[in-house]
Amino acid sequence: MRDLNNLTVAVVGATGAVGREMLSTLAERAFPVKNLLALASSRSAGESVEFGDTSVTVQELTAAALNGVDIALFSAGGSVSAEFGPIAAEAGAVVIDNSSHFRMHEHVPLVVPEVNGQEVVAALQKRVQQIGPRAGAIIANPNCSTIQLVVVLKPLLDSAGLKRVVVSTYQSVSGAGQKGIEELWEQTLAVFNQQEMPKNVFPHPIAFNVLPQIDSFTDNGYTKEEMKVINESRKILAQPDLKITATAVRVPVFSCHAESVNVETARPLSPEDARELLMRSPGIIVLDNPGEMEYPLSSELAGTDATFVGRLRRDESVENGLNMWVVADNLRKGAALNAVQIAEIVLDHWGRESRSH
Amino acid sequence: MRDLNNLTVAVVGATGAVGREMLSTLAERAFPVKNLLALASSRSAGESVEFGDTSVTVQELTAAALNGVDIALFSAGGSVSAEFGPIAAEAGAVVIDNSSHFRMHEHVPLVVPEVNGQEVVAALQKRVQQIGPRAGAIIANPNCSTIQLVVVLKPLLDSAGLKRVVVSTYQSVSGAGQKGIEELWEQTLAVFNQQEMPKNVFPHPIAFNVLPQIDSFTDNGYTKEEMKVINESRKILAQPDLKITATAVRVPVFSCHAESVNVETARPLSPEDARELLMRSPGIIVLDNPGEMEYPLSSELAGTDATFVGRLRRDESVENGLNMWVVADNLRKGAALNAVQIAEIVLDHWGRESRSH
Repeated sequence: MRDLNNLTVAVVGATGAVGREMLSTLAERAFPVKNLLALASSRSAGESVEFGDTSVTVQELTAAALNGVDIALFSAGGSVSAEFGPIAAEAGAVVIDNSSHFRMHEHVPLVVPEVNGQEVVAALQKRVQQIGPRAGAIIANPNCSTIQLVVVLKPLLDSAGLKRVVVSTYQSVSGAGQKGIEELWEQTLAVFNQQEMPKNVFPHPIAFNVLPQIDSFTDNGYTKEEMKVINESRKILAQPDLKITATAVRVPVFSCHAESVNVETARPLSPEDARELLMRSPGIIVLDNPGEMEYPLSSELAGTDATFVGRLRRDESVENGLNMWVVADNLRKGAALNAVQIAEIVLDHWGRESRSH
Repeated sequence: MRDLNNLTVAVVGATGAVGREMLSTLAERAFPVKNLLALASSRSAGESVEFGDTSVTVQELTAAALNGVDIALFSAGGSVSAEFGPIAAEAGAVVIDNSSHFRMHEHVPLVVPEVNGQEVVAALQKRVQQIGPRAGAIIANPNCSTIQLVVVLKPLLDSAGLKRVVVSTYQSVSGAGQKGIEELWEQTLAVFNQQEMPKNVFPHPIAFNVLPQIDSFTDNGYTKEEMKVINESRKILAQPDLKITATAVRVPVFSCHAESVNVETARPLSPEDARELLMRSPGIIVLDNPGEMEYPLSSELAGTDATFVGRLRRDESVENGLNMWVVADNLRKGAALNAVQIAEIVLDHWGRESRSH
């Protein structure tokens, strides 16, 4: 059993853009952390990061550092997760991993709490049965663009079925981490100063440009980012044959990903009914008042928790077609917040387990 | 008959972003202008504009100023076209109008030379039959986002039929004219200087943001820009029932519109065959080499004439589905160049007419 009054929580990759957001989200939501470990590579060890009102010294990530951890939030890249995720889980931690490494593993749940939060509890129960009361586990946190999409698709699926989805994204540079934010800033300054643009993060200049490439290309002409949206959406929604296609585009925006989403539902669903449905669905705020020029804007939604939907309208080009515009903060709902929400499910489950014994 | 050695060409709205581009395009393409009239509102009269190596003084647009004009390129907004377009045509000018005012008029051809250039000649012949040898006419130049879309759709239509088109745009601020360019520039500077952003042109800040609104909203929840893409594409392609939907989005880019285009063809067309087809189609350059991270980029294509296509790939979510990324300079192919290309068809027709007499 876990001692819920004495929880040790580790954030792995604590100095990155998502890691910092994980720390602030844990603090904001008053997650009952007794011992907070901020872990990172040896390069960042010794730095300080903020956790609520306190400052925490970053320690080097080692196997030994993961001993005694109850919950480990990983956001340090796929290779770090591949190496240290299983070590942490073996040592009894529930690993909530923001990298893509485990997402498509058959036995790892890929979770968006509003959509398939119950899979967390099922996975924990199974591990406890197999291993014992302090069994660890690995739970994967999906791709940022996928999370906000499936939050909106889930109620449509449940209410009217999904026949086909076509999504084009408008993704902010913070999706590439702190260094992505810096590159947009520095390139923009270079344009103003008529200097050569620094170019380290993105494949082409992002300042005053749009890039139809996020991550590298796969053999079928899609980028890995596009295939993540396709494959992860299918897994999270438990619709392995979902008809969905994606074009992922980087835009010169600091925070929030926007998506132009075209949906064909299997059964009729009017825009009015879809709006009502989305308004009462978890994690969604409908901002849709064209007369007042009100719709979700990336510039206004940084730091928010919900997935925002607007521009909801009938697509007359197909039976049961809907168009909409979906925006969320990619560092929060798209990463840190979703991970912490998963941690809250874990905590809630442990709480119920301990009360029932 | 026209004296082709003594052509008078007027550019109405000569001081605007598109008007200036019309002047430079006429000069670059060595259009045989004998007398060039730069016309604008009384506010701009007296200013100078560049025409090739010469400087031309802007005159006030009046009915009298349009007397004796052979070809008038209008880009001064819908109300100016509504008032002075018919006056110019009545006085014998072939009006090529870049405003939206006449585009959907039943008897006004809406022309993209690569797609339906033959409609120009048909319209001129009909007017000459009705009125006489020096008959004027009005020909409409389509919306910028529409032009680059139909250039690409036309060969697909001819080769494999079009079942449905879903387009999401990434449109530059120059689509809103010189003042749009200035607003992006000034707002970006204001962000750097931590000052209040000036906001005169766009409904919300455009610096470091994406706006899912271009032009005002219509009753069906679509913007006018989106309805232009839908309705004008149908007219130009002569497919009044074409299944097409659009989401038009402004991005903080100075020049070029990009489009994420999803096409279902009626008959099978492989990405390889589509690529071959587009490579040999007029006005199109295929830039599609993902291995080299090569695809059309807004930042690199300002000042170019072609419509560029890349990211061409199979959409597996539907039978005969294709995804592609389409970029063109909205001030050139999307406006000035297309208008001058129409003028070249007019000139060519007059040349053939005069040689046959």
